[in-house]
Order: sequence, then C-alpha cells, then structure tokens
Amino acid sequence: MSKGKILLVGFGPGAREHMSVRAIEAIKESDVVIGYTTYIKLVQDQLEGKTVIKKGMTEEIDRCIEAYEQAEEGKVVALISSGDIGVYGMAGPTYEVLLKSGWTPESDIEVEVVPGSTALSACASLVGAPLTHDFCSISLSDLLTPWPTISKRIEAAASSDFVVALYNPKSGRRTQQIVEAQRILLQYRKPETPVAIVKSAY
Amino acid sequence: MSKGKILLVGFGPGAREHMSVRAIEAIKESDVVIGYTTYIKLVQDQLEGKTVIKKGMTEEIDRCIEAYEQAEEGKVVALISSGDIGVYGMAGPTYEVLLKSGWTPESDIEVEVVPGSTALSACASLVGAPLTHDFCSISLSDLLTPWPTISKRIEAAASSDFVVALYNPKSGRRTQQIVEAQRILLQYRKPETPVAIVKSAY
Repeated sequence: MSKGKILLVGFGPGAREHMSVRAIEAIKESDVVIGYTTYIKLVQDQLEGKTVIKKGMTEEIDRCIEAYEQAEEGKVVALISSGDIGVYGMAGPTYEVLLKSGWTPESDIEVEVVPGSTALSACASLVGAPLTHDFCSISLSDLLTPWPTISKRIEAAASSDFVVALYNPKSGRRTQQIVEAQRILLQYRKPETPVAIVKSAY
Repeated sequence: MSKGKILLVGFGPGAREHMSVRAIEAIKESDVVIGYTTYIKLVQDQLEGKTVIKKGMTEEIDRCIEAYEQAEEGKVVALISSGDIGVYGMAGPTYEVLLKSGWTPESDIEVEVVPGSTALSACASLVGAPLTHDFCSISLSDLLTPWPTISKRIEAAASSDFVVALYNPKSGRRTQQIVEAQRILLQYRKPETPVAIVKSAY
C-alpha cells in the first residue's frame, strides 16, 4: 500500500489572506479535505476536484478516524480547522486516534501540522489590543473539562495579572459560565478594565 | 501631505511558507521596511527596491519612532517582527509611541496589524504537542517586569494546570530565571512532565 499523509491544517482567522502559504499549498496537494461544515465553507474556492467530507460540530472523533482511514488508503488528507489547529483544535484528538490505532511517528503515514494564526492573537490585533504582556487562554466549555478546574484557572489568571482570553464563552445551553467568569475576574480587576468581545471577526 | 501607513507585520515562525498571504503583500506594498537585524535577514529576498532600516535588539522604541516619522512623510512603512507582532512584539510599543505623539485612529496615518502564527503555537505544532488544553505564555525576561510578578504568574499557572510556554527563558546574563521557574513548576508537576526546548525551529 502506498504511503498516505495527514496534513493538520490551521487556516487562521477565516479570510484567505490570513492563511499561510503552507496552508494553501497543503490544501492544494491533498486528495481529501475533511472539516466541520463551517470550515469547509470558508475554503470552498480551494476545493475543486477534491473529495470533501463535511462533519458536524459533535463529530470530532469521526473526522480523525476518517482522516486516518483515508490516509491508510494512500491518500493525502487535509484535516482543516480555523485558527491554529493545535489550539483547542483537531491536532490533539487526531494524535490520540492515531496512537490508539498503533500509529507511530516512524510508521507509513506521515503527519504534518501546519500552524496558523490563532483567534487569540488575530482578534487582539484587530481590536488594537496586542498581547504585549503575559497572557493565557481559557475555554469556558465544561463539556470535557469540569467547571471547578476552569474556575480555578480563571481565578489563577485573574489574581496573577495575566491578559485573559476566553474561548467558547457562551452557547445556547451554556449561559452561566461567562457570568461566573466575570464574577471571578471582578474580584481582582477594576470594573473599568477593557474587554473586547469578538465574533466572526475576519 | 499625503497619507502614510504603518503596517505592523508578524511574519510567523521564520520560514517564508509560514507567512500569511497578507504579510507577504504587506511587505510588497511598503516603501520602507524596519526591523531587528535578524528579522530583516529572514525576509531579505522580499526587500528589493525598498528602503531598509535595521535596528539592534535594544532599539525597539527607535524603530517605532522611525516608523511614525516615515509614515508622516507619506510613506507606507512595514514594521516587521517574527511570530505574531502583538505577542511580546512591536505592536504594543508602536501604539504607545503613536498615542504619545498625538495620533488617533481617526488621524491621517492608517495603522494595520497583520497577525502571524506565534512561536507558541508553531513550536507546539512542530514538536507534536498541540495546545489542546488551556495554556498560558510567560516571558522570563525581568528587564521590564519585576521578577516577583513573573514568579507569581508561574506559580498560578503551575497550580491551576495550564500548559505553560516560557518565552525568553535565558540569555547570557539571565541564567537563574529558568532554574527558579523549574523549581516552582516542580512543586506542582511530576518530574516526568514532558518539556520541549525549541530554538531556531523553522
């Protein structure tokens, strides 16, 4: 069987001009492109002639397994993600699926991670608040991380004067986490501390 | 006087292929390129026909002032930096210089920040350790930040289980900060906790 390849591609904050040269090339050289429906839409103009596999929000592991199976068939597979594919992205779960399947870095299937500009720094750039000082990133989604762990991190970040970026602040069902985060932050920060709320920025 | 423009350009981890399309275009459209000597070298092949101003490691504010003066003369100026220009980069001090000089976002000189892939995520990608969980970035340079502040942040990050990225770990003169950081981290982390040391990666 010929060697397959998995390209884990972060395409940055959304606009094509903020993709790296390597990210564009990686999609170009792939036979199969796999991604969350919204991500596929963002790179639609680059997908002609490729097998495109769209998956929903909850099908993360399915995407990884699909990528592995296609690569085992000798295909070059791009698994795409906005921002940096490492940062709360698909790189982690893909490595987990690969390692559980017996894959090793020496095995037939090559894996390349293509870094991208994160929402964290891209959005900070956009609102004129560059990350000049120490910063941290905390996801408010308690789907996989217990809330006490998240809340401890918010407290630690607030009390030691990090610039704080909150990912996944709120969803239809999760509405209290952002309120609780604000309560914790206000124990240490002045009410006039600037906050930027950024959505669909690029 | 015609309008000038300041482009604050992060060109990513070093290799041209990891620059964004916008970063390449921004350098292309500029009349003047200003940067730390090492950064200028990294984009040398893109500088033909441009006024190039190299400055040393300690001349950060000089670079900002130079950018402002050139933009006031109507030039398009690219101030370049590796990684993301916000993350411990030149975007912060440039805004400070601009605001002190009476510049406002409504004034004649346009400022655009071009985000790039940070060392933080690019190096995590490279070593196969994507930032799947909450993370933070701490600079060990105590030139402008007092050590007790830095040490408090390390302790906060270690005790609340952040993935920790240390920037500026060591220099010719600063050799004890990394030793002290290790001591603090080992109060909370197992000695077998994986650590990646990355230098001149791309």
